[in-house]
Amino acid sequence: MLPNLTDTPSSASRKSFEFELVTQQDRARAGILRTPHGDLPTPVFAPVGTQASVKALTPRQLEELGATLILANTYHLYLRPGDLTIAEMGGLHCFMNWRRPILTDSGGFQVFSLAESRQVDEEGVTFKSHIDGSMHRLNPEKSISIQENLGADIIMAFDECSPPYERDYNLQAMRRTHNWAERCLKAHKRDDQALFGIIQGGIHLDLRRESCEFLQSMEFSGFAIGGLSVGETKEEMCAVLDLMNELLPRKKPRYLMGVGTPEDILRGIICGVDMFDCVLPTRLARHNAALTRTGRLNLVNAKYAADPSPIDQNCSCYTCQNFSRSYLRHLIVAREMLSSTLISIHNLHTLIHLTQLIRKSIMEGCFDDFAKEFFLEIEKEKVEIDDSPQFNNH
Amino acid sequence: MLPNLTDTPSSASRKSFEFELVTQQDRARAGILRTPHGDLPTPVFAPVGTQASVKALTPRQLEELGATLILANTYHLYLRPGDLTIAEMGGLHCFMNWRRPILTDSGGFQVFSLAESRQVDEEGVTFKSHIDGSMHRLNPEKSISIQENLGADIIMAFDECSPPYERDYNLQAMRRTHNWAERCLKAHKRDDQALFGIIQGGIHLDLRRESCEFLQSMEFSGFAIGGLSVGETKEEMCAVLDLMNELLPRKKPRYLMGVGTPEDILRGIICGVDMFDCVLPTRLARHNAALTRTGRLNLVNAKYAADPSPIDQNCSCYTCQNFSRSYLRHLIVAREMLSSTLISIHNLHTLIHLTQLIRKSIMEGCFDDFAKEFFLEIEKEKVEIDDSPQFNNH
Repeated sequence: MLPNLTDTPSSASRKSFEFELVTQQDRARAGILRTPHGDLPTPVFAPVGTQASVKALTPRQLEELGATLILANTYHLYLRPGDLTIAEMGGLHCFMNWRRPILTDSGGFQVFSLAESRQVDEEGVTFKSHIDGSMHRLNPEKSISIQENLGADIIMAFDECSPPYERDYNLQAMRRTHNWAERCLKAHKRDDQALFGIIQGGIHLDLRRESCEFLQSMEFSGFAIGGLSVGETKEEMCAVLDLMNELLPRKKPRYLMGVGTPEDILRGIICGVDMFDCVLPTRLARHNAALTRTGRLNLVNAKYAADPSPIDQNCSCYTCQNFSRSYLRHLIVAREMLSSTLISIHNLHTLIHLTQLIRKSIMEGCFDDFAKEFFLEIEKEKVEIDDSPQFNNH
Repeated sequence: MLPNLTDTPSSASRKSFEFELVTQQDRARAGILRTPHGDLPTPVFAPVGTQASVKALTPRQLEELGATLILANTYHLYLRPGDLTIAEMGGLHCFMNWRRPILTDSGGFQVFSLAESRQVDEEGVTFKSHIDGSMHRLNPEKSISIQENLGADIIMAFDECSPPYERDYNLQAMRRTHNWAERCLKAHKRDDQALFGIIQGGIHLDLRRESCEFLQSMEFSGFAIGGLSVGETKEEMCAVLDLMNELLPRKKPRYLMGVGTPEDILRGIICGVDMFDCVLPTRLARHNAALTRTGRLNLVNAKYAADPSPIDQNCSCYTCQNFSRSYLRHLIVAREMLSSTLISIHNLHTLIHLTQLIRKSIMEGCFDDFAKEFFLEIEKEKVEIDDSPQFNNH
């Protein structure tokens, strides 16, 4: 637990929140994010605990596999069990027994992707709960109030996330997001939380530039890059990231929402991103797919039935140190829920460990070589392009 | 890991297996069962890992909550993934990564309770798999062969488990069980496994006496009391246990199969039983019910929605030390599988810890007081007789 290490006078840095850029190699950054619940070395990958639970894992297992930051979803927790209940139980850290930092999103993305019959106006969004069909309204002030009740270390401005291509929709959604960003900053009172702005604009570089410049002028503690990894091409994503790196201030953390795969994390870091989150590792695990650095294994495949080797010979996670592909396949076929737990441990460890290795290589000045070798490895060793299901990453 | 500590000349004691009766208070016994995978202090409660997995828990979590012995099911593992696959993977300990002792049942109970369209004859049983309808045959030799392939420390003779009341059926099933017991002993070759005989006879004391005397004359390493906790009354169960205690040799371990609840475990120990197993704690957990020493909590109950207290204030398990009823209820309502994990940890800890306390009280000569206080506690404090589902304990 870190108390207020610094008391920077700028109101942009919240009392107990500070980002220190430790070193940089080309555009890749290694830093430390100081929060009321401890220091986060960056780059960092955050497992997703949508409903105040990273699916199938205890907080102890998450700590053991090296998780430092986790994400929880405002939309889900507002609907169930309710932010007031969580506040009454001492806040999200206490409720779910996670002593390290937590980030909550704003609910924006979920309202636009999950809720039914939503109606957007300049003031906010009215929507039907996907759980029971009840009607609700979210707006910037409400989203901040919920996030203050939840009590995460890092919270997000309420935004409208638009599909990447339609220019008119993106322009409109971006302008609305800017308007809402101002209201979020105004509404936010807790000084032990860092509020991040979310840059929108789809794949349109002029809109992204406008969004970035507008939000930078405001007192956010960090910036999230929203609306990526939602259907655009790799080239389009990289073009946006290149521009973001050029425009964003060096001294504030940068968070690429909903990414992702080992390859995308590496690309993000090459473009100067500090933070990532994604449901992919735990969702793949529940669909029997193991992530390796360079591909995926579909563990239900009959060829693993008597395979005594672990998912990955070189992996140091609890699952790979103790269980064979044969056993994991048996658990899957026998519908034992332990399969989700064990594969989730491996998948999360893969991304977290990769991020740690990348940080180390940046600190030691050999990130270039690391990245080159990694891309070669991907090309050469792709162990299996299997038919594991494709997911929206969020 | 214990190598062969003793090399008793009697072929009844298998090479690396020995039971030491450490002390006794009235009929209650505290002992040590030495196995190739370590010493088991008795009385012992064994969690059930039917398909080579104690549902929703990793072996590490089982170790942390104090499990020493676990049970796995011959019937299920023979059908899936197959005992030959498990043997090829190094045996059950290696396959499921459980380094402590394992007990396998014989498949008898499951053939009679789970399989479809079974046909029993003197030689064995033909049955249809409950998984895919394929036809199979189990007999004493096959059951032992499967259990040798699985490689548990303690294995069971193949038996016919009959419903408790019909006298004719019980007589017939018992005689068959005796015949099969002889064949099991003859078939069993591995000297690193202890083979237990199973006493049958339903609620009929004369049959139980005959079964006990017959099996005692043979070279079993221990005795299981089968066919209880399957619908008979408490009084009927106790009458059988009283008789068993009277007839069974002091120097061999006694195992009451499929029991049970805190109260039944205590009653068993009062009647001289050393070993117990039951699916109840993990099955209740998957149905949202928490075991306490004296009752059950149905955690889905709305009254727990904002209850900050743990399941049991006095419990030292990981779940009670870290999570509120409010959080557990949220996980249940939100269908997060972590609820099964956390409640299983608590439920298993409750039974294992109770058994440890009982052992301690026997060692210290105060078991009488312990038992008296416990029964008073049950009478006085029954926290909740709720409508949680009733289960067959097996």
